[in-house]
Amino acid sequence: MTTKEILIKAKNAKNELLLLSTEEKNKALDAMAQAILENEDEILRENALDLDAARGVISDVMLDRLALDHKRVSDMAKGVTALIALPDPVGRVISEHTLENGLTVKKTSVPMGVIAIIYESRPNVTSDAAALCLKSGNVAVLRGGKEAFRTSYAIVRAMKKGLEAVGMNPDLINIVTDTTRESANELMTAVGYVDLLIPRGGKGLIRACTENATVPCIETGTGICHIFVDELADLDKALTIIENAKTQRPSVCNAEEVLLVHEDVAGEFLPKLKELLVDGRKAEGKPPVELRLDSKAAKIIDGVPARDTDFDTEFLDYILAVKVVSGVKEAVEHITLHSTHHSDGIVTENENNALYFTTVVDSAAVYVNASTRFTDGGQFGLGCEMGISTQRLHARGPMGLNELNTYKYIITGNGQVRK
Amino acid sequence: MTTKEILIKAKNAKNELLLLSTEEKNKALDAMAQAILENEDEILRENALDLDAARGVISDVMLDRLALDHKRVSDMAKGVTALIALPDPVGRVISEHTLENGLTVKKTSVPMGVIAIIYESRPNVTSDAAALCLKSGNVAVLRGGKEAFRTSYAIVRAMKKGLEAVGMNPDLINIVTDTTRESANELMTAVGYVDLLIPRGGKGLIRACTENATVPCIETGTGICHIFVDELADLDKALTIIENAKTQRPSVCNAEEVLLVHEDVAGEFLPKLKELLVDGRKAEGKPPVELRLDSKAAKIIDGVPARDTDFDTEFLDYILAVKVVSGVKEAVEHITLHSTHHSDGIVTENENNALYFTTVVDSAAVYVNASTRFTDGGQFGLGCEMGISTQRLHARGPMGLNELNTYKYIITGNGQVRK
Repeated sequence: MTTKEILIKAKNAKNELLLLSTEEKNKALDAMAQAILENEDEILRENALDLDAARGVISDVMLDRLALDHKRVSDMAKGVTALIALPDPVGRVISEHTLENGLTVKKTSVPMGVIAIIYESRPNVTSDAAALCLKSGNVAVLRGGKEAFRTSYAIVRAMKKGLEAVGMNPDLINIVTDTTRESANELMTAVGYVDLLIPRGGKGLIRACTENATVPCIETGTGICHIFVDELADLDKALTIIENAKTQRPSVCNAEEVLLVHEDVAGEFLPKLKELLVDGRKAEGKPPVELRLDSKAAKIIDGVPARDTDFDTEFLDYILAVKVVSGVKEAVEHITLHSTHHSDGIVTENENNALYFTTVVDSAAVYVNASTRFTDGGQFGLGCEMGISTQRLHARGPMGLNELNTYKYIITGNGQVRK
Repeated sequence: MTTKEILIKAKNAKNELLLLSTEEKNKALDAMAQAILENEDEILRENALDLDAARGVISDVMLDRLALDHKRVSDMAKGVTALIALPDPVGRVISEHTLENGLTVKKTSVPMGVIAIIYESRPNVTSDAAALCLKSGNVAVLRGGKEAFRTSYAIVRAMKKGLEAVGMNPDLINIVTDTTRESANELMTAVGYVDLLIPRGGKGLIRACTENATVPCIETGTGICHIFVDELADLDKALTIIENAKTQRPSVCNAEEVLLVHEDVAGEFLPKLKELLVDGRKAEGKPPVELRLDSKAAKIIDGVPARDTDFDTEFLDYILAVKVVSGVKEAVEHITLHSTHHSDGIVTENENNALYFTTVVDSAAVYVNASTRFTDGGQFGLGCEMGISTQRLHARGPMGLNELNTYKYIITGNGQVRK
């Protein structure tokens, strides 16, 4: 099927989904999860073909992300089932008031319509995204990476079978079969068909969407996260927080990439940091963190000299850029210039500095005395998420079910006219 | 000054505005209003030059919109002052909760940053938009129509004087001095400088923004509004509502452009409608409404045969396209294909039909038994507005102060790390 044909089917399925009750949507989710389990053999067979084709083409880390087994298939089904317990985001009354003339004005949450998701090679995104769309009343058009195409297609086929088994329209979930760049461009410019585009992936994909999309788009993901250790920081807290933010899982978007440290405490703090992240980890047989130091930090501890680009790089690795600053103002100025507006934090015991930092730093999540690793729908208590929005329009930070809705005003009267 | 230089100044002023208290912003608004009144002579002098240059170039209706007098200047100042009483949208705690690990997660409203507004020739948009931006914590970059440039520039100059008089940065309000198409393009693509672009104007401007903007953009304005008279409508209510929606002020975006009428009541309803909107108005010396009829309606009453394009036209005039449909489903299908997602209504006494209509019609405002003319920030009780958003992302319908904000999460702990 061409991408255009898929988009027409998706658009035509919108109204049907609008009219489903919460119970019907939950029944669909249950059937989708069941069908994933029942079709495990086929999914694993197609996954093996994807893996064979990808070996030698993509990195071992990426191969690992792509590989499925019984446990991962079960986890996908569990991820779909988990949405059943979450409240239906559609139909929430956000506000309601009656005007003097008797008109009631009700602001009510409604689905976006058709949501297109362009993502890379992780197969579980296929089932997660489809389930989030369905629960939030949106028709999904998925466009996964070509390395995982056979797997994703098998997962979608299973979910469509699930929908059919309970008498629902299989077009509520769609996957684009053209895996060339052309189909991504088609989705980005499908005005009148795609109501929201969500790219999930690296910098290149996000930039392509920002530059080329003529449909509404939400940027997700890229995180150059900063932590500033203030003059008035509790240095032990700072060490614990930075160790966690940098090393607990360096490959994710909410990991720390840049450390800013106040010049008045750098002399005491940086040697302790080096002991913890470099020498201590080596002694424990863990991968040490490579410290990339600006000229002031390099006068205090040993490390790799930082290049300018190190302060604009999402390393996603055991690397930390370090810069000594004169205070909270310079720290905030640096963050304003270099942040990707994802997650940035301050470690301080001083309330005024904390307030200045949280007021002026313009990021989705701004932390005081905590690890940036908490920026996550699950951690925030919002349930599963479609990604982390780094833009200001519509949704910012974790995008859960509510963020996949918009609203409309429903105005009810008995013949009122405007004077 | 080049547009780029203006954008740099605007960006640099962002943090200053973030740190102003509500009282300081209100003081600024008061000073801006005062300065508009004090500089009335200069504003009127510049306006006279604009009018001289525009005569013969733009229509009489547009000339009237452009012309200022003592009353209109006073009204502009009053519009600015009116914002003082409205609640500050910045710093609202949208939600707050404490996680098991003791972290508090606070979702707080914050300004967008720099808002660029591209608009056409009404001078009062200049003061309204500047004041709405300031109260909502945003730096304004205005780019008005070239016919009104001298007037707008004089208004901005006055407001800047007002800011300076109370010791504030005049760069909080900016106007682009290049009135060629080039400066509009620069604003649309000023990634890193413009945090939100709001085009206010006709279809051509909106389309140019949708197609070319690489900065976040909110579409406003175009309204092809429908009213459907159901089989189970109270026909007297329907007549009153349609008369108001079509004739009370036909030049605005929430006026009705298309009437859909159920085939079972068309025979009774259409002759009454023609009597009211055509013959009755003629008898009273008011401009009659031109009815453009589809083939079924033309069998019932006299009128102009409708062309296909009449159902996709924002007339903004005493013209109404009329189509006979088989029921609420066909009405909703027609609206889905032709609506601009602004305001659409149903007249019916049947609750199921009303529910079906409000559920499936995907517009910012959906009406039951009331005139579409109510879609307006003031009418909805939301205060002044920057325009009516017809898109789904972020803000939908009237964009008041709250809609000119985004949010961020502020997370406060005492050393928490992720397990």
